[in-house]
Amino acid sequence: MGNHLIEQCLRKPLPSDMLEALKDRFGARFNTAVSVREHHGRDESPFPMMLPDAVVYAESTDDVVFVVNQCRTHQVPLIPYGAGSSLEGHLLAIEGGISLDLSSMNKLLALHVEDLSVTVQPGISRKQLNEQIRTSGLFFPIDPGADASIGGMAATRASGTNAVRYGTMRENVLSLEVVTAQGKVIRTARRARKSSAGYDLTRLYVGSEGTLGIITEISLRLYPQPEAVSVAVCNFPSVRAAVDCVIQTIQMGVPVARVELMNTDAVRASNMYSKLTLQESPLLLFEFHGSSASVKEQAQTVQELAKDTGGTDFAWAEHPEDRNRLWTARHNAYFAGLQLRPGCRVSTTDVCVPISRLAHCIDKTTEWLEKVSFPTTIVGHVGDGNFHVLMLLDPNDSNEWEASERLNHDLVSLAIESDGTCTGEHGIGLHKLQFMEAEHGRDTLEVMQSIKDALDPLNILNPGKVIPRFL
Amino acid sequence: MGNHLIEQCLRKPLPSDMLEALKDRFGARFNTAVSVREHHGRDESPFPMMLPDAVVYAESTDDVVFVVNQCRTHQVPLIPYGAGSSLEGHLLAIEGGISLDLSSMNKLLALHVEDLSVTVQPGISRKQLNEQIRTSGLFFPIDPGADASIGGMAATRASGTNAVRYGTMRENVLSLEVVTAQGKVIRTARRARKSSAGYDLTRLYVGSEGTLGIITEISLRLYPQPEAVSVAVCNFPSVRAAVDCVIQTIQMGVPVARVELMNTDAVRASNMYSKLTLQESPLLLFEFHGSSASVKEQAQTVQELAKDTGGTDFAWAEHPEDRNRLWTARHNAYFAGLQLRPGCRVSTTDVCVPISRLAHCIDKTTEWLEKVSFPTTIVGHVGDGNFHVLMLLDPNDSNEWEASERLNHDLVSLAIESDGTCTGEHGIGLHKLQFMEAEHGRDTLEVMQSIKDALDPLNILNPGKVIPRFL
Repeated sequence: MGNHLIEQCLRKPLPSDMLEALKDRFGARFNTAVSVREHHGRDESPFPMMLPDAVVYAESTDDVVFVVNQCRTHQVPLIPYGAGSSLEGHLLAIEGGISLDLSSMNKLLALHVEDLSVTVQPGISRKQLNEQIRTSGLFFPIDPGADASIGGMAATRASGTNAVRYGTMRENVLSLEVVTAQGKVIRTARRARKSSAGYDLTRLYVGSEGTLGIITEISLRLYPQPEAVSVAVCNFPSVRAAVDCVIQTIQMGVPVARVELMNTDAVRASNMYSKLTLQESPLLLFEFHGSSASVKEQAQTVQELAKDTGGTDFAWAEHPEDRNRLWTARHNAYFAGLQLRPGCRVSTTDVCVPISRLAHCIDKTTEWLEKVSFPTTIVGHVGDGNFHVLMLLDPNDSNEWEASERLNHDLVSLAIESDGTCTGEHGIGLHKLQFMEAEHGRDTLEVMQSIKDALDPLNILNPGKVIPRFL
Repeated sequence: MGNHLIEQCLRKPLPSDMLEALKDRFGARFNTAVSVREHHGRDESPFPMMLPDAVVYAESTDDVVFVVNQCRTHQVPLIPYGAGSSLEGHLLAIEGGISLDLSSMNKLLALHVEDLSVTVQPGISRKQLNEQIRTSGLFFPIDPGADASIGGMAATRASGTNAVRYGTMRENVLSLEVVTAQGKVIRTARRARKSSAGYDLTRLYVGSEGTLGIITEISLRLYPQPEAVSVAVCNFPSVRAAVDCVIQTIQMGVPVARVELMNTDAVRASNMYSKLTLQESPLLLFEFHGSSASVKEQAQTVQELAKDTGGTDFAWAEHPEDRNRLWTARHNAYFAGLQLRPGCRVSTTDVCVPISRLAHCIDKTTEWLEKVSFPTTIVGHVGDGNFHVLMLLDPNDSNEWEASERLNHDLVSLAIESDGTCTGEHGIGLHKLQFMEAEHGRDTLEVMQSIKDALDPLNILNPGKVIPRFL
């Protein structure tokens, strides 16, 4: 599937003195068993496995420095590994090398309640983090669906359902500790909420997908747990009507915490998977955060807007169990999709466009989807102009793969014409490399490449990702 | 004043064929008159003038490309110039060269009301921008006090009174057009609200102070004009009590739009300058944005918190004229300070610390200020942990300059010990160069320098700024 893009180069075995050095230092935390390499050579993307030569389980920044130095000395590729939940092939060892598993570096290092910030190691997952800070009255809002690692979320500039209110990893990382390709441990910024002191290295490493340095500590912004939360569901006669409601909500400045679109197919899949009885039409799922009065006011404003744009059956869920049931349905949309076609492989689109172009893009996509032979669903973080088509493909049918790639290509072209991006939140990995030139232009990619060359001159850090090879 | 830091190098005259080329293309928009060079060789910093060799008035991106190509060919320094309102010496031509005046590139290029965004040229000022979009129902919130150019604000990662609610230029620039040192015109991102497509070049150029490229277009996020605005003033028995009130406000998640501290000296100066009768004690000035009900609720919550922390005389101003009078007083704090000592020169500190350390830092600063011989005031964007000491110095008394530099040095050291930064919003320019190593460490500065070397290998773009020379 897509092998033409991702052929693994002929690779040399790991140098024997490097093998010895890693075995000496890491003992059982250095592993070359096929099963372990297989686990680290695949992710949630539609690509086949591409195995690293070995896996090292790091437990400290010093461990990371040691491995980076080995890889630099021997010019061996190095790929950081968190939770393995990438959808785009970020983790695949296209040139072999070392997979550096950071999942044991999962400690909460410091919680600063007064400052609304926390410092963590990269392997902690977002759910683990929120569990550990629950009693502080604070929470970390970024929620990409999967229980991704915070390091992986920083590395891919992840976002998700809450971004419309709280921003993405771009806005919520205060500072990073990074091991550079030279084996230096740097800190990108202090913990102040803002600074004008020099180049914004924090934002440069956020979204760099392991190609510029290895993130070993992350300081994050936290937010007070809202006094009140309420959830509302509303059905619409068409996707366009739903999107119109979202546009008006954003333009009115309603500080909605989440607003998610599901098309009819996605609702149907969720009903089946999550045993719900939602009306099977395009649907918006809202969440409001604030004081009790403010939450009520927000919901009322949105209810009026929904009515004006053709929405029906606006229903609130204030009880935690009802809210959780609805959000579980949205969070499980991916698995609900999988269940539509047991044994399928999923390929996902991730375009994000200015919100004024969103209805047109979704309409056009819906037209295209009517012509494909495989099941699909559409879900979207529509407050940001971001939506996903989940395409459920027969892994043994190359025609389906090719049709899905054509659809993705057409959709990305439409998004780029609409001043949007090929990836709102999943990242480039391998799957979106082909669109980087259309999106950015050759001159912009050359600037990116010159930064890569400056920071990783031997190209040991996750080689072959982010910037297409032609440069 | 501070000449030991900023000696101008021996400079060569501009090459004659470059002179001819610039005269040919720009005619009267190329100027070498001393008065024009003097205007472009100073800013609002305490440094003496350092003149460029010539000034070019650009009217288009093509003009900028032409000048960049000339400067690269002849290895002549190039300094972009917007409104000249820098407080830190960003504009000073320490190695001579060309000052590229962008103030005529001040057009609003495209307003996208549905997308809450606008694209402008760099020379437009924030007030001009807000004037031109007023009828759209949207506004651009970033307000550094001065009527700075948007290009300059992007280049210095500016913020100001509204940042506690709306973020800084870091959060509010969607995309840039940049002319690189190679004379290429690149766009850093599409206009989508979020993207994971490659390195975050937007954030790399924001805050780069003209040292990595020349910003020629800026796409910004806009916000709906709030339905209701109210302002409240509250006096406190001490700066610490006021800061405690701010910490609790932030921790409660009250979405306050502005919260500004003035110490007793700043209030006194404003009373004199703006003909007000504010009680002369530490004071917080709040602004609330939202629906009428939400604004009322926010103000009530804050009023209770203020009472709990010793605040007195909590007073609301809902009428626009009362609000404007109060904010004019705050905005004029700089000029009010100047009036305390006619003929003085102002030197400003700009530390920003995690908010838990803010009260300690201001207390310590207040102790130090009791020992200096010159007048001072303290004003602060305390919701962000950022405050300024305005030091009003006799320009003919080098002892005062030295004492002010010692105070700034002590304050920055305290901020850095407190995990804060030497500059929350003014930028490095020349004045903060000396603190970059203490704040970031040598290895982090080397990463910054390697990026500078990669993007501007001949060091023609605002040389000598951002990164100290020792590297």
